[in-house]
Amino acid sequence: MTEDFAKIDGHIGQHLDGWLAELAALCRVPSVSARHEGVGECAHLVAALLASRGFEAEVLPSDGHPIVLAHAVGKNAGRTMLLYNHYDVQPPEPLELWTTPPFQPDVRDGKIFARGAKDDKGELMARLAAVDALLAVDGCLPCNLTWLVEGEEEVGSPNLPAFVERYAERLRCEGAIWEEGGTDAEGRPQITLGARGMLYVELGVRALSRDGHSGNANLIPNAAWRLVWALASLKGPDERVRIPGFYDGVSPASERQRELLEALPSQEAAIKESFGLDQLLLGRTGADVAAAPFDPTCNIAGMSAGYQGEGSKTVIPAVASAKLDFRLLPGQDPFEVAEKLRRHLDSEGFTDVGIKILGGERAGVVDPDDPLVGLVVETAEDVYGKPAQLVPMSGGTTPKYLFTERGVPVVAPGVGFGASNLAHSPDENMRIVDFQNAARHVARLLARFAEA
Amino acid sequence: MTEDFAKIDGHIGQHLDGWLAELAALCRVPSVSARHEGVGECAHLVAALLASRGFEAEVLPSDGHPIVLAHAVGKNAGRTMLLYNHYDVQPPEPLELWTTPPFQPDVRDGKIFARGAKDDKGELMARLAAVDALLAVDGCLPCNLTWLVEGEEEVGSPNLPAFVERYAERLRCEGAIWEEGGTDAEGRPQITLGARGMLYVELGVRALSRDGHSGNANLIPNAAWRLVWALASLKGPDERVRIPGFYDGVSPASERQRELLEALPSQEAAIKESFGLDQLLLGRTGADVAAAPFDPTCNIAGMSAGYQGEGSKTVIPAVASAKLDFRLLPGQDPFEVAEKLRRHLDSEGFTDVGIKILGGERAGVVDPDDPLVGLVVETAEDVYGKPAQLVPMSGGTTPKYLFTERGVPVVAPGVGFGASNLAHSPDENMRIVDFQNAARHVARLLARFAEA
Repeated sequence: MTEDFAKIDGHIGQHLDGWLAELAALCRVPSVSARHEGVGECAHLVAALLASRGFEAEVLPSDGHPIVLAHAVGKNAGRTMLLYNHYDVQPPEPLELWTTPPFQPDVRDGKIFARGAKDDKGELMARLAAVDALLAVDGCLPCNLTWLVEGEEEVGSPNLPAFVERYAERLRCEGAIWEEGGTDAEGRPQITLGARGMLYVELGVRALSRDGHSGNANLIPNAAWRLVWALASLKGPDERVRIPGFYDGVSPASERQRELLEALPSQEAAIKESFGLDQLLLGRTGADVAAAPFDPTCNIAGMSAGYQGEGSKTVIPAVASAKLDFRLLPGQDPFEVAEKLRRHLDSEGFTDVGIKILGGERAGVVDPDDPLVGLVVETAEDVYGKPAQLVPMSGGTTPKYLFTERGVPVVAPGVGFGASNLAHSPDENMRIVDFQNAARHVARLLARFAEA
Repeated sequence: MTEDFAKIDGHIGQHLDGWLAELAALCRVPSVSARHEGVGECAHLVAALLASRGFEAEVLPSDGHPIVLAHAVGKNAGRTMLLYNHYDVQPPEPLELWTTPPFQPDVRDGKIFARGAKDDKGELMARLAAVDALLAVDGCLPCNLTWLVEGEEEVGSPNLPAFVERYAERLRCEGAIWEEGGTDAEGRPQITLGARGMLYVELGVRALSRDGHSGNANLIPNAAWRLVWALASLKGPDERVRIPGFYDGVSPASERQRELLEALPSQEAAIKESFGLDQLLLGRTGADVAAAPFDPTCNIAGMSAGYQGEGSKTVIPAVASAKLDFRLLPGQDPFEVAEKLRRHLDSEGFTDVGIKILGGERAGVVDPDDPLVGLVVETAEDVYGKPAQLVPMSGGTTPKYLFTERGVPVVAPGVGFGASNLAHSPDENMRIVDFQNAARHVARLLARFAEA
């Protein structure tokens, strides 16, 4: 095996510039799903990249943004690996914090900077690099590949469940490679097994038909105050979500999961440094940091009311709104949580606070003892030269539940160190060495999967 | 007297177009004090308008925006009336709610629409119309006039106190005409006697060195949550401000003030209609509506954090901010209230919430039995043909305390019906009939003041 992969690794090392150019072309398309920008163009570019590798690639409609579905036959045609990626990206704001513009990719300091450079165009491109290397060295793919590239991951994949249902036959597979995961700050591979679910809502209040002069503040209601009080009813500084029944169905980490948590090296120092903190939330430390994702969350992602310009304006805001995401655990259904939220607001007197659901996904969990997980660990250690860690639950959300709930083991080889790539933030980037290692890892994983 | 004023009224009726053209020119200058825009240009335009009427007009520096100070000698040189106006305006946002652009004045339906059309460029121009009419009919002014036109009223007049101190000699007067007041919805003149003070602050939180991915929401603090909890600690839905000591020094309405309140017709229906409400805040009704300004307030004028664009973004905001105005009563000092706010936030655990003071003014109150108040009432009834009402305390704020505290009676002839002119809101306007009546009123008031 070592000899084969030496050739693969050699090919990858020699062709980086071409893949980076293709990645830059992908990142130049501002496929911000929240705003429905550039999604059709980006889907077709992804399909073209797949077709150029010999995939039968189609851009298929959904009730939202188009979804790319592609197939290629490999040497062992009895085994199919599904690869999941997404071509959409998070909004680039705040723009003023980017060193170079988010949709004008820039290579500097051994990194490529752009919105999507890591999440998830960079990851998609690294997998294409693995495919190219396998084709170049072996002349064929080791197994069948089915590639699913959606355009609404960053807005909660609202149309993926129906798509997976509709194309269930074409999506049949013995294993799936998802996004998420990577290395920790010391370069140790982290293999994430669980992804939390999510409910994303926008709360909105209209208190007045128009903004008022604040001299009337004792006489007419203020939408910002209504929103503040409604939000404060959801969670206090103890971080406990106060919606009745919110925690129903949530189980603590199992014995096996606790074992895995205890084996994880602490990420505390890396997170503190990354966000300029003296201590983590609630003073979390030690094993408590790794265990944090076993608590569901209620996060304010944005908030807006009244005058936000320079200086002062004495106005009573007529409207106010907030965006909230709840990260959910197995046992919590996002749409049931939305109903509980509605009942809670009503019972607290906030019938005037509207709820608009922008996304809902269930959590998805993989058995740490599945053979495919073992393959990911082995191949990761081969690439990174360090022992791999199994992360039983990650903080993030990705719709792998659509496959885990069908009994498919879903694994994630991951790309690079999470905190350094600034995914979802200004100056998102991918280290070229991480790109290279991800390609090496996926090539190994596909080859070993085909043998199993 | 009736005959003289018939000539004055005739002159005013015949020259409206000219004044409206001058008013439009004033409104075209976007003198938004919160953003320091167009203030120098507007000050010079005001000085030129005064000079063209024979005033000795100067644009004087302050520590903030320039202040226009002008003098003219009248027939009775033993009596001086001070006129106060401001050339700055509120920010025009939200721009999309204006029917025509805020700084492109438009005359339609008997109204002139523009930011500042009423507050306060329209009022200034109506007074200039009164001056023009008096000069045209009588050949001279009835008394001395000192005109003070500042450029920071909408941001709390931070530099007016020092200016009034410095130019105390030149600002000596036997009476002063201020802004505020007008008619009620039925056209009955309302003479306001008290103006509340104000503290304007911006609260700001930085929780992280950069925005985070919301998958980390159990691990790192969220600036929006910190702000929400800090705000919720200030006031609940009972509208009672929870800052310890906030109400210290506040007296209930006196017996004389209660008499005046009871004599006022209800504005409840007009306010409800103006803001599309079924009921007023806290279910206020009857005499409770007129008495509302005797309670100080805590108002959220604006609030901002995280992602506010279309759709969803799963981000933990690094920073959050809110703008607050507190309307204050006699006995409350704005800077002492700011200190109490700081102590309150600290004691509630919000040492991370910063306070930036953007303005502070004390309340100012005039004796309802002052002879100058009597003159305003008489002349108002002559112009409007309806009995005048004395409003012991208005909801708004204006720095007349700088003169009332020096023993000067400060009165306000007022312009038009407050709720219809949309001051501080999109589509701010002045009815031309209100402009005309304001000019007639001021002309009478100056003439009668000179005789006293």
